[in-house]
Amino acid sequence: MKRIGILTSGGDCQGLNAAIRGVAKALYVRFGEDVEVYGIIDGYRGLIEGNYKRMQPSDFSGILTLGGTILGTSRQPFKKMRIVEEDSVDKVKNMKNNYKKMKLDCLVVLGGNGTQKTANLLREEGLNVVSLPKTIDNDVWNTEMTFGFSSAVEIATHVLDCIHTTATSHGRVFIVEIMGHKAGWMTLHAGISGGADVILIPEIPYELDIILETLEARNQAGKRFSILAVAEGALSQDEAKMSKKEFKAARAAMRFPSISYRLANEIGEKIGSEIRVTVPGHFQRGGSPCAYDRLLATRFGAAAVDLIAEQNYGNMVALQKERIVPVPLSEVAGKLKLVPADSEIVQTARNIGISFGE
Amino acid sequence: MKRIGILTSGGDCQGLNAAIRGVAKALYVRFGEDVEVYGIIDGYRGLIEGNYKRMQPSDFSGILTLGGTILGTSRQPFKKMRIVEEDSVDKVKNMKNNYKKMKLDCLVVLGGNGTQKTANLLREEGLNVVSLPKTIDNDVWNTEMTFGFSSAVEIATHVLDCIHTTATSHGRVFIVEIMGHKAGWMTLHAGISGGADVILIPEIPYELDIILETLEARNQAGKRFSILAVAEGALSQDEAKMSKKEFKAARAAMRFPSISYRLANEIGEKIGSEIRVTVPGHFQRGGSPCAYDRLLATRFGAAAVDLIAEQNYGNMVALQKERIVPVPLSEVAGKLKLVPADSEIVQTARNIGISFGE
Amino acid sequence: MKRIGILTSGGDCQGLNAAIRGVAKALYVRFGEDVEVYGIIDGYRGLIEGNYKRMQPSDFSGILTLGGTILGTSRQPFKKMRIVEEDSVDKVKNMKNNYKKMKLDCLVVLGGNGTQKTANLLREEGLNVVSLPKTIDNDVWNTEMTFGFSSAVEIATHVLDCIHTTATSHGRVFIVEIMGHKAGWMTLHAGISGGADVILIPEIPYELDIILETLEARNQAGKRFSILAVAEGALSQDEAKMSKKEFKAARAAMRFPSISYRLANEIGEKIGSEIRVTVPGHFQRGGSPCAYDRLLATRFGAAAVDLIAEQNYGNMVALQKERIVPVPLSEVAGKLKLVPADSEIVQTARNIGISFGE
Amino acid sequence: MKRIGILTSGGDCQGLNAAIRGVAKALYVRFGEDVEVYGIIDGYRGLIEGNYKRMQPSDFSGILTLGGTILGTSRQPFKKMRIVEEDSVDKVKNMKNNYKKMKLDCLVVLGGNGTQKTANLLREEGLNVVSLPKTIDNDVWNTEMTFGFSSAVEIATHVLDCIHTTATSHGRVFIVEIMGHKAGWMTLHAGISGGADVILIPEIPYELDIILETLEARNQAGKRFSILAVAEGALSQDEAKMSKKEFKAARAAMRFPSISYRLANEIGEKIGSEIRVTVPGHFQRGGSPCAYDRLLATRFGAAAVDLIAEQNYGNMVALQKERIVPVPLSEVAGKLKLVPADSEIVQTARNIGISFGE
Repeated sequence: MKRIGILTSGGDCQGLNAAIRGVAKALYVRFGEDVEVYGIIDGYRGLIEGNYKRMQPSDFSGILTLGGTILGTSRQPFKKMRIVEEDSVDKVKNMKNNYKKMKLDCLVVLGGNGTQKTANLLREEGLNVVSLPKTIDNDVWNTEMTFGFSSAVEIATHVLDCIHTTATSHGRVFIVEIMGHKAGWMTLHAGISGGADVILIPEIPYELDIILETLEARNQAGKRFSILAVAEGALSQDEAKMSKKEFKAARAAMRFPSISYRLANEIGEKIGSEIRVTVPGHFQRGGSPCAYDRLLATRFGAAAVDLIAEQNYGNMVALQKERIVPVPLSEVAGKLKLVPADSEIVQTARNIGISFGE
Repeated sequence: MKRIGILTSGGDCQGLNAAIRGVAKALYVRFGEDVEVYGIIDGYRGLIEGNYKRMQPSDFSGILTLGGTILGTSRQPFKKMRIVEEDSVDKVKNMKNNYKKMKLDCLVVLGGNGTQKTANLLREEGLNVVSLPKTIDNDVWNTEMTFGFSSAVEIATHVLDCIHTTATSHGRVFIVEIMGHKAGWMTLHAGISGGADVILIPEIPYELDIILETLEARNQAGKRFSILAVAEGALSQDEAKMSKKEFKAARAAMRFPSISYRLANEIGEKIGSEIRVTVPGHFQRGGSPCAYDRLLATRFGAAAVDLIAEQNYGNMVALQKERIVPVPLSEVAGKLKLVPADSEIVQTARNIGISFGE
Repeated sequence: MKRIGILTSGGDCQGLNAAIRGVAKALYVRFGEDVEVYGIIDGYRGLIEGNYKRMQPSDFSGILTLGGTILGTSRQPFKKMRIVEEDSVDKVKNMKNNYKKMKLDCLVVLGGNGTQKTANLLREEGLNVVSLPKTIDNDVWNTEMTFGFSSAVEIATHVLDCIHTTATSHGRVFIVEIMGHKAGWMTLHAGISGGADVILIPEIPYELDIILETLEARNQAGKRFSILAVAEGALSQDEAKMSKKEFKAARAAMRFPSISYRLANEIGEKIGSEIRVTVPGHFQRGGSPCAYDRLLATRFGAAAVDLIAEQNYGNMVALQKERIVPVPLSEVAGKLKLVPADSEIVQTARNIGISFGE
Repeated sequence: MKRIGILTSGGDCQGLNAAIRGVAKALYVRFGEDVEVYGIIDGYRGLIEGNYKRMQPSDFSGILTLGGTILGTSRQPFKKMRIVEEDSVDKVKNMKNNYKKMKLDCLVVLGGNGTQKTANLLREEGLNVVSLPKTIDNDVWNTEMTFGFSSAVEIATHVLDCIHTTATSHGRVFIVEIMGHKAGWMTLHAGISGGADVILIPEIPYELDIILETLEARNQAGKRFSILAVAEGALSQDEAKMSKKEFKAARAAMRFPSISYRLANEIGEKIGSEIRVTVPGHFQRGGSPCAYDRLLATRFGAAAVDLIAEQNYGNMVALQKERIVPVPLSEVAGKLKLVPADSEIVQTARNIGISFGE
């Protein structure tokens, strides 16, 4: 009898349920009645607190198309995992105890970067772990793609499409704020796909004057409007030179809820007209996954079960050169996949005349 | 030979091109080669400045599905129409002159409340005018429906849907800010259709404590999350008691870009967790019109041509009790259709347990 | 204690779950702990066979957006309801017995025309019944709108949109077959909204030669393509003259699976090029309801509970002149709301140059 | 001065305009005023007949989101290219003459397999050619992905989603016919993403009895419904053994418009209930491209211009291991990329319990 636990951790995204279903269906097909699946509630919190339930095959029916996660999720910062505060629980100890209590053969973990770090910690602590890379940010190391990313890009692109029709009609400048605090993948992909004129991402700090020049050049060329796709984590070249502490202080003092509102204000003052801001926010990670993400999540799910069958633990399933491969959690944990400033896709954007404000 | 001018004015919305096409096709079908259609650029501005062009039938092909307006639009505040500032043009005089210069038999005007007021002014000045009611706000007097509204409600509902999946997964409180400064129609319809738990609209001022009670009650009932659909123009009961001047001052002093961010802050402080805000903004009025709006816009367009054929000028086409009827511009101008606090749809919302914060 | 049964019957459509949820939420809000809701499985079949279950409030959470019906449905032809075949059950007797066994105060029935007839039969048999009009066909008597219709029209319109881009690129003639065996509402609305050039509906029999003339005229005018929106129940003027028996025989002998394929063949032979056929079929009634249908279904649901509270049984809730009103089941049963050939919307279509093949 | 011709050939798909725009924008950014772009109308037919026009930068604005191709397309079978029928034109000679008449430096060709073959022929004839792989079938040799494919998969998946809700409500068997006469990529991807229970593709001939066993097994397991995703080119194991001639004859004698209707009939007779068929048809290749296809098409377009700048002619741009690379047209022409029956994605489908009817 195989006993498999499964949890989803960190910010949710599209495709989590598709992946959960992929793991479960592949387990039932492969092991038949010789497997028990345990759903751990609200991510690592459920593992810490012993909150889980035995799942039945029917629990995984009809969830392929659903956004979010049927298991619930929560943020449990990695850096606090080993810290046992006064009057507080020993999280790592609890997780190990609950893993033993459930008599698990393997824990399947779905998550982004933070989640992978804790998965690696549990591996170091001797637990059998297999993980799947999920996040709309696509910033997990060693995999070309995470599920959730494509769905979120489709949504952000659709927002840009709609903004286009209103921008052309009115002859205005618009800013669309796209998710991504550290990595600019979403903004880069959606920006190109949505026909943005300027793309600002954390990896390529911008110069306000260059943005203004781009807007002016479009104006000169008779273009009535301009659209800026701005990542949540976009920052100016001046800010890029700051220490982490200085940067935090500067942002805390900023009187806008996000960089987009600040930019709208700065640009608006220079060009003398109001800049509209759209903040689709968590909308970008909700709703039904796109077909691509459903397939990728299912492939990852089935591949995770291959690893379980081979007792090949301690790995994350990853997409590399269009193939699903295992990569050691020890290599993934703690790294961040950022947009290389000279990557082919960035260069494609430049080649068709998109400005990065640099 | 009939000579018909057409312009779109004010904020754009879905269905403008469908309506323009409806007018044009109906003109060409009815009058054949005996009609010339003139597109006036960027709304009343084009009429003031004499910026227009002779349109051909092919100009109206393929535009049924397009968002925005192929004629461009601009905001020309009604209250400034009669004011001739120093060194400035006499707008009304110019519009009359250009109408004569084009030798128009009728001017077809597509717009919201402000646009209708100016249309009425031109009627008073002796021009032949027929107008169509367009706006995502659905606040034009004497018509049950404006085109644009249904498309915008579909989008706002879709945003709420997506927020739902992330809210349920995380167990959080979310605010979705929906367009509507004066009228709450969009927030009301999308709020019900999108399964919001709290709906805040300008017509029903809220009490913060009541909202907090609703959230607490949901919490007690084991609901993991809550979603607030908040109109841009939502205001508290205290604010509702202010004079217009006091209210403006209070809002100007507010350190948030909109009421949603303020509410998120206020509620967040009370319940001790971060409230996420989504601001779909102009996304709500962009993109392809829904089927309903295309049909309504086409019906309005064809009905406008009926009025032109009958030389029945000075009217807006309207939807009343599921029929298209003409209503005198003089009756429409200057009035606003707000949500009655005791309307059947508000009552429906209450009956299924939605709170209006009152 | 109120005890309310609820069932969905006949072909499914979008908005059934939204309506079920509307009824349930309104019951719980109004009666609190003093109500029990029973879900009857697979429509009247469940009532005949005594297959039902006590529902809990949580059963109605998260279903607003779901297509189909959580209660299941089946077709139970009205004309067989009173027939007790040898070795068969007495359906009406069983339904009455199960109603009594459940000790229901009222049975809420969601369905189309056939369903309303059986609902009326149960009313005649002394049961308390309240019904809601659902169908993508929009052919229920005495209500301007049924839920499901708008969602299905949106889908059919979207199919027409997509066919447009391929038709224009290739310069071809396309047929899109739209649901509706008796009533042409869907084809009429989607045909206009989707920019069809020819609309064929059961209420307006076509002449093949007229269609060919329309196609030729478009060709002459330099239009590269034509799109026909054809209702499943479209028929030729010759067929319209047949007796019901002759018609059935003619169609049974037809070597095509539907009228669209026959038309494609007939037209293709005349114009000498292949006509492509698209049959979206049941796709048109699946998936998440549009915002309009969710609101309408919720309004109907809440209104049904008003009737229950007033013990005003024997009615269907209906939309008339934008208001929700009760209409006696006795007036609804057995009637069909067809498209009047001279209705305003048909006239709108003609006015913008759409041909009905007549 | 660079003079570049561009044409789209064969069946249209999503992303053609995005690719055309990508080529044009990259040309204008790189060569500025030193480039002239010629649009050749309706594919190779325009090149044969000398039907083309000088394009301006504004012609490429606003087309990113449009389905179809602004240049028009047509089918010009490769095998007839070299055949000069009596009274007919010498197609190859004409194409060469028109290329010279336009004084082109390079011809950019967007198309599928047939198009690539003719592109290679033109290369052999001494013309400078660069090509892009487009097709919803994803069957072009040497590239992991063609644009159009992902958009079409999204649509087919959405159809499957909608069929799901109606299938579950009614407890029925449904067939969705998905495009693909020779290659099963679309059916495979959409089948998995749309949660099909059975996937039938040309590369894996089916046995009817195995399909019936799968349906029966689902029935036994208490599943109320089953969905079959069937490629247009699906065939039985008996048919797979036929000679090409026998197969053609067998299909010509078939009294159904496609394999799906035949299967519905065969299965329906065996299980004793009607099987519904959905034929989305050309709907699958119409409408706006998804974000993925827009990006891929743009990358291909920009890469084609890189090749033009390097005077590296005679290549198709391709996606290999997530990188855009040139591949010689001579290697691409005449080959077909089919689904390997043992590929990882087929195995994924099997691992989660999907049957291929074998």
